[in-house]
Amino acid sequence: MLRRLFQVFAPARDRQPVGIRADRRSADKLIADCRELMSEKGEVSGTRIATRMLSGYQALDLAGRDRFFDLLIRNFSPDPEEVGQAGDAYRKHPSPQTLAKLQRVVEPPRQELFRRLNIAPGGTRVLVEMRADLLREGQSSREPIAADLEHLLTSWFNRGFLVLQRIDWRTPASILEKLIAYEAVHQIHGWNDLRRRLAVDRRCYAFFHPALPDEPIIFVEAALTRGMSDRVQPLLDPEAAVADVNTADCALFYSITNCQKGLRGVPFGSFLIKQVVEDLGRELPGIRRFATLSPIPGFRAWLDQNRSAPDIKGLLEKLDDPEWNRNEQIAAELKPHLLHLCARYLLREKGGKDPLDSVARFHLRNGARLERINWLSDTTSKGLERSAGLTVNYVYRLSDLERNHELYTRESRIPASPEVEGLAAKPPRVADLKLA
Amino acid sequence: MLRRLFQVFAPARDRQPVGIRADRRSADKLIADCRELMSEKGEVSGTRIATRMLSGYQALDLAGRDRFFDLLIRNFSPDPEEVGQAGDAYRKHPSPQTLAKLQRVVEPPRQELFRRLNIAPGGTRVLVEMRADLLREGQSSREPIAADLEHLLTSWFNRGFLVLQRIDWRTPASILEKLIAYEAVHQIHGWNDLRRRLAVDRRCYAFFHPALPDEPIIFVEAALTRGMSDRVQPLLDPEAAVADVNTADCALFYSITNCQKGLRGVPFGSFLIKQVVEDLGRELPGIRRFATLSPIPGFRAWLDQNRSAPDIKGLLEKLDDPEWNRNEQIAAELKPHLLHLCARYLLREKGGKDPLDSVARFHLRNGARLERINWLSDTTSKGLERSAGLTVNYVYRLSDLERNHELYTRESRIPASPEVEGLAAKPPRVADLKLA
Amino acid sequence: MLRRLFQVFAPARDRQPVGIRADRRSADKLIADCRELMSEKGEVSGTRIATRMLSGYQALDLAGRDRFFDLLIRNFSPDPEEVGQAGDAYRKHPSPQTLAKLQRVVEPPRQELFRRLNIAPGGTRVLVEMRADLLREGQSSREPIAADLEHLLTSWFNRGFLVLQRIDWRTPASILEKLIAYEAVHQIHGWNDLRRRLAVDRRCYAFFHPALPDEPIIFVEAALTRGMSDRVQPLLDPEAAVADVNTADCALFYSITNCQKGLRGVPFGSFLIKQVVEDLGRELPGIRRFATLSPIPGFRAWLDQNRSAPDIKGLLEKLDDPEWNRNEQIAAELKPHLLHLCARYLLREKGGKDPLDSVARFHLRNGARLERINWLSDTTSKGLERSAGLTVNYVYRLSDLERNHELYTRESRIPASPEVEGLAAKPPRVADLKLA
Amino acid sequence: MLRRLFQVFAPARDRQPVGIRADRRSADKLIADCRELMSEKGEVSGTRIATRMLSGYQALDLAGRDRFFDLLIRNFSPDPEEVGQAGDAYRKHPSPQTLAKLQRVVEPPRQELFRRLNIAPGGTRVLVEMRADLLREGQSSREPIAADLEHLLTSWFNRGFLVLQRIDWRTPASILEKLIAYEAVHQIHGWNDLRRRLAVDRRCYAFFHPALPDEPIIFVEAALTRGMSDRVQPLLDPEAAVADVNTADCALFYSITNCQKGLRGVPFGSFLIKQVVEDLGRELPGIRRFATLSPIPGFRAWLDQNRSAPDIKGLLEKLDDPEWNRNEQIAAELKPHLLHLCARYLLREKGGKDPLDSVARFHLRNGARLERINWLSDTTSKGLERSAGLTVNYVYRLSDLERNHELYTRESRIPASPEVEGLAAKPPRVADLKLA
Repeated sequence: MLRRLFQVFAPARDRQPVGIRADRRSADKLIADCRELMSEKGEVSGTRIATRMLSGYQALDLAGRDRFFDLLIRNFSPDPEEVGQAGDAYRKHPSPQTLAKLQRVVEPPRQELFRRLNIAPGGTRVLVEMRADLLREGQSSREPIAADLEHLLTSWFNRGFLVLQRIDWRTPASILEKLIAYEAVHQIHGWNDLRRRLAVDRRCYAFFHPALPDEPIIFVEAALTRGMSDRVQPLLDPEAAVADVNTADCALFYSITNCQKGLRGVPFGSFLIKQVVEDLGRELPGIRRFATLSPIPGFRAWLDQNRSAPDIKGLLEKLDDPEWNRNEQIAAELKPHLLHLCARYLLREKGGKDPLDSVARFHLRNGARLERINWLSDTTSKGLERSAGLTVNYVYRLSDLERNHELYTRESRIPASPEVEGLAAKPPRVADLKLA
Repeated sequence: MLRRLFQVFAPARDRQPVGIRADRRSADKLIADCRELMSEKGEVSGTRIATRMLSGYQALDLAGRDRFFDLLIRNFSPDPEEVGQAGDAYRKHPSPQTLAKLQRVVEPPRQELFRRLNIAPGGTRVLVEMRADLLREGQSSREPIAADLEHLLTSWFNRGFLVLQRIDWRTPASILEKLIAYEAVHQIHGWNDLRRRLAVDRRCYAFFHPALPDEPIIFVEAALTRGMSDRVQPLLDPEAAVADVNTADCALFYSITNCQKGLRGVPFGSFLIKQVVEDLGRELPGIRRFATLSPIPGFRAWLDQNRSAPDIKGLLEKLDDPEWNRNEQIAAELKPHLLHLCARYLLREKGGKDPLDSVARFHLRNGARLERINWLSDTTSKGLERSAGLTVNYVYRLSDLERNHELYTRESRIPASPEVEGLAAKPPRVADLKLA
Repeated sequence: MLRRLFQVFAPARDRQPVGIRADRRSADKLIADCRELMSEKGEVSGTRIATRMLSGYQALDLAGRDRFFDLLIRNFSPDPEEVGQAGDAYRKHPSPQTLAKLQRVVEPPRQELFRRLNIAPGGTRVLVEMRADLLREGQSSREPIAADLEHLLTSWFNRGFLVLQRIDWRTPASILEKLIAYEAVHQIHGWNDLRRRLAVDRRCYAFFHPALPDEPIIFVEAALTRGMSDRVQPLLDPEAAVADVNTADCALFYSITNCQKGLRGVPFGSFLIKQVVEDLGRELPGIRRFATLSPIPGFRAWLDQNRSAPDIKGLLEKLDDPEWNRNEQIAAELKPHLLHLCARYLLREKGGKDPLDSVARFHLRNGARLERINWLSDTTSKGLERSAGLTVNYVYRLSDLERNHELYTRESRIPASPEVEGLAAKPPRVADLKLA
Repeated sequence: MLRRLFQVFAPARDRQPVGIRADRRSADKLIADCRELMSEKGEVSGTRIATRMLSGYQALDLAGRDRFFDLLIRNFSPDPEEVGQAGDAYRKHPSPQTLAKLQRVVEPPRQELFRRLNIAPGGTRVLVEMRADLLREGQSSREPIAADLEHLLTSWFNRGFLVLQRIDWRTPASILEKLIAYEAVHQIHGWNDLRRRLAVDRRCYAFFHPALPDEPIIFVEAALTRGMSDRVQPLLDPEAAVADVNTADCALFYSITNCQKGLRGVPFGSFLIKQVVEDLGRELPGIRRFATLSPIPGFRAWLDQNRSAPDIKGLLEKLDDPEWNRNEQIAAELKPHLLHLCARYLLREKGGKDPLDSVARFHLRNGARLERINWLSDTTSKGLERSAGLTVNYVYRLSDLERNHELYTRESRIPASPEVEGLAAKPPRVADLKLA
């Protein structure tokens, strides 16, 4: 039985091509370092060994890293026999002592290894990178290591250890260039573009972790506007005039980006938005509304998947025209249909209990309300391709977040404005859509 | 069986006196908050609930805290039935999946609860305080919670997250006053005393954790001296002249203090000393020797326990005279005997494989060498009572630490200078000790 | 004529005792350095020469410094012949050119010398110290140097270069110990006393200059209170309970101290108080009143000077009893008389256009209003000796400062509350004062 | 006579065109503010008035500012009658008192006005801007104001108040963008270019003044190289590989830029270079040589001015070919002639006692030595147009600076390497220059 288990854990042996001998040796050498780090020697020379290991890991190519992961599974997993025995002992005499023993032996020695690696300068950074490596495709056999790291990093990147910092034009360039590199919603086109996004009528905040001082973990960009904006492009225009902040009554979150692949699944976004809403509310009492201007990334794909539905079919023919949004007549014709379908998509289409749309899931789970669907709001190619040019304003009212959240999580109800509810409820007449 | 387990975990019911109804209700209310924090509501309002809980905990008196801990054990321990079943499933089909399931169910829900408490501002501080409460006497039934917190805090206070900071007279008073309060080896007698210990011929370093910005975790005090000092009092004299740092060739660590009771058992000291040795060596190339001037806290008690031994008996009679060290004749007579006995105590007397003396264990485990035993070195009442006025210099040579450590941990050998070896080897003639 | 001028400038030769030859040589050597610093060599090696000079100056004893000042006057004063010629040239052809020439030659070369000394690290500090030396008694012959330094330092310590910083318990101890040393109004009795004065119901602010980073220039201490306090002792009690800031409606300035003797005459106090009033008003909107609790340092001396006046004579006999304030009967008897006399002293007694009392002059010139005279308000020995135990609340209302200031400076009128006006207007019957 | 003086000071009245009435009124209003600021009202409301004035000044267009300056001269100059009388009094009775009086009345009230303007936030910045305005062409009638400001700013921007800061990629973007804007020697082509110039094998340092926190005053760029580089282009290539700093033995200053027009004439460069040489020497002991790679900005113009000289004439015909440097044959032919002429130009051609070339004057005055003339070293269009493609290495040896400086300033001798001396001494045969 142990044998079988071992085989399950270990990846197929012949997966590795012949030419990577060198890295095989490097990976094997790393594992030797791991053993040393876990030994008594590690206790007194831990920092030195860990430092050597981390740079050893970073020097490995992909194949070498795969080899290293396999060895980690083979050598630093719980001992099945020990686990079995501790389980039996607990079954026989359930007590704090037998439970403690069981807890000890089910924890993979990898966990302690990772913690010891972390004592070297820059260790946390490499561990985050390691997890990113494990989230690459084809890593399913290394899932246990990824799970170990997720557990560890979730604990280490606890909200209580994150520091909120405002990002503006006085922020070090070494951090600003990372915003340019990471921005995932609306690409930042160089330093001029960034400079506009950090002007006085904008706000940008990021979470940082003390162990990664130069690395934003997640950041959000907001515009301070008069009225809740319904169009993306004016916000992205680097030449747009800077607005008077004193007359602003709305903070519009138009972009939120997770920066670290290796921290995927660790929840930051909800904390960030709520913290910023609270802080901005205190700092600028004139801001009465906090809303997003969000993409609907799954909308267009959903339309395509439902291409054969009678009320979608003719519509898609027109949407397939890459110039549809520039043709006023076609756009006017499409408008009621797309708005209705979008409202339906957001409010009614679910996978299990939750809405299909990932952005909707995120904001609704946070307790926001689906306030408005905006027509021809994001006409970048990405906006057209994914969201059919539409966007959504989700509104964050601090006093409603908890109730909305509970409606959503317990009763699977989606808080929405009457306007959006109305859009979803009344389909326009299909006959109005003139087919080509 | 489950029943029995429950009883084992739960503390005796009638331990609580009658009058503490109020705090019983408070503790019960806290547990209700815990449940809310772990529920879906906790997801959106976690910070608020956790903040309320933390101040709730701090408002509890000791009895209330005990009650709270009991409820934590009763309500947030692993479910024995679930554990049993997951153990069985793993036994039947050992696989990453069944192992993962087992790992999940043996982790007490308390762990997740503690992590969620940490999202509130100041959370880490209260969790450290909570562990200190659990280390009080008579808490054996709450050992599982203490173990949970130790596991969590050891992970969070990993060396990689600690920041070394120099403490000097420009350090904020809010931190300096804590040095005065915490110093455990040689009491600091007010601000003047502290000021002298932070003068230019001294160095003080502390580890800080980013989540406890005003709290030193551990600190060490060193004097930069010419020659390896053999007496404590001149170092502690607030009026001592400030030495010329340029002629110093030795950094003498005369005090190292762990500040946080709630972090007992999390290893910091070894990291701190080695880091300071490295940093000072770089900054001041003239410093060629790094040594301690350490107490021998168990020496006097060991003498007392061996009172009946022929070579100790007569000696103790003289030592019991509180003025013995001021009587030159008696002191001269005692000197060879005490030095020999102390060397023997340090090098030969062991509890299991390790030396009896706790300070010796600490420095030897770090890889230091027992260099010298100093006669009439610490004549404070504490120094006389615990160490019979003697002190030890342990020397830290970076290039020897690893070898010394391995000698010590693997072969139970104690690295010592020939001088100390000689002292231990040759007992003076007892007859020389003139009995009263 | 030139000769005569020289003699006027130069101090008497035989003032110096014989024994100070060494320092005479040191001072002469310094002057040689001065010449080098002003020469072309100074241009390329200025920092080195200036550094040497500054430590040379600090090594001089008082006699050496006097000698150095005399040499400064003899060697680095304007050349009377040049001044005379430039004056004549200007008289003959007044033009920008002749004026510029005259301006150039009347500026003592000392000014440039001081500016060059300032390029050395720590130069500003020594120049401030030098001016303090020149403000010692018996320095009238060196008045021109003191005037040069005053001109220079007034320019360098312009308000625009000062930085307001809040002082609290997180401030470096190296700065806090200076508050203890400098406090001039109500002595700070050690660190505990200071700690209380920096608690959350207190505020302390100081001006700093970037060139003197560890030196407060001036600082003010305020208490946040409910109601305008009329007694000093509760504010000074280190054991006083910390008040709830949320209910405070008054910021009471109870001490303001100029720290640098060498900056005497450079105006800081007015800027500091107004800035703090503005900042506190913004930060704590609940604070509606900004007032001082000030001594009346000249009151008791004024009574003594007017000892023979019929309404003062009998009164002084009682006041001379060092226990008068503890004798309820005597105190009750004295009260109306002292209050009336104090109001009269503050409102009516003038030296020229301005009130006799220096503290009154300071606050009134700032635009404050004399609000209230407080009975048995400061019963420390200093308070009794100087102010007969009385204090004054001066109120700072931002909207009235300008008007009050103009009333005061243009019309010599003293803004005061009706209550104080009333006290000054109606003398109590002298007969009521029972003579011993 | 007073009348005449007045007219000399006052600018011609009819210089102003008719259309600028509005700004005339604005300037007049500013002057009214100036009077208020200088009055007693200014004492209590100075910050407010000064703030209003500064923004008033910044709102003025050029004509308005000219008007304002004229009024400043007319209204805030010394009173000729007072000056005359004080001069007479001093002539009659030269004494410290009459001298002090004369000093007081020759100082223009503008000086005090400027000092009072400086109390407003941002005041220093506007005063620097004001001086820049006064350095525009055609401002000769306002020379007295410019001189006042120069005197004031020279005092305020004393080396002792400047802070040296290293600029690297962690510097705030708000400062980095100013380097891009200000760089005067080798233009920075955007952020990528800048990033390369701040890589680990480069150093950039700037002086800052505490009152202008976001404004570099002067900055210098250096490359850490192996050997003293003789070509500019590799240093400017944004794609150049980053060198290994550990093997560098030379710090090569390739650009130094004064940033603030309004501080023209205040000496910073010499302090900056020497400070950086000292600091780098301490930090990187491997750096043995500190040198510049400097343009010879006047060389080409000097050749043109001496076009008719027999040894220059034919040469210029070839140089006028814009492609000359790409034609290997022509370049080879020109090389000995240009190198000789350049050495002669630098060593022998003087305006008065000093060399014609401004960059040479700067470095020689600092005590540097002219080490090497580099052939085809800067082939940018600017490099060719001004320096005929040549550059010079000036070497800074700390131990020689003083001697070199004295040779240069006292004896007008130019310290140069034998190689450069040789070039200047031996003209190549003109006949070798084949004429077209």
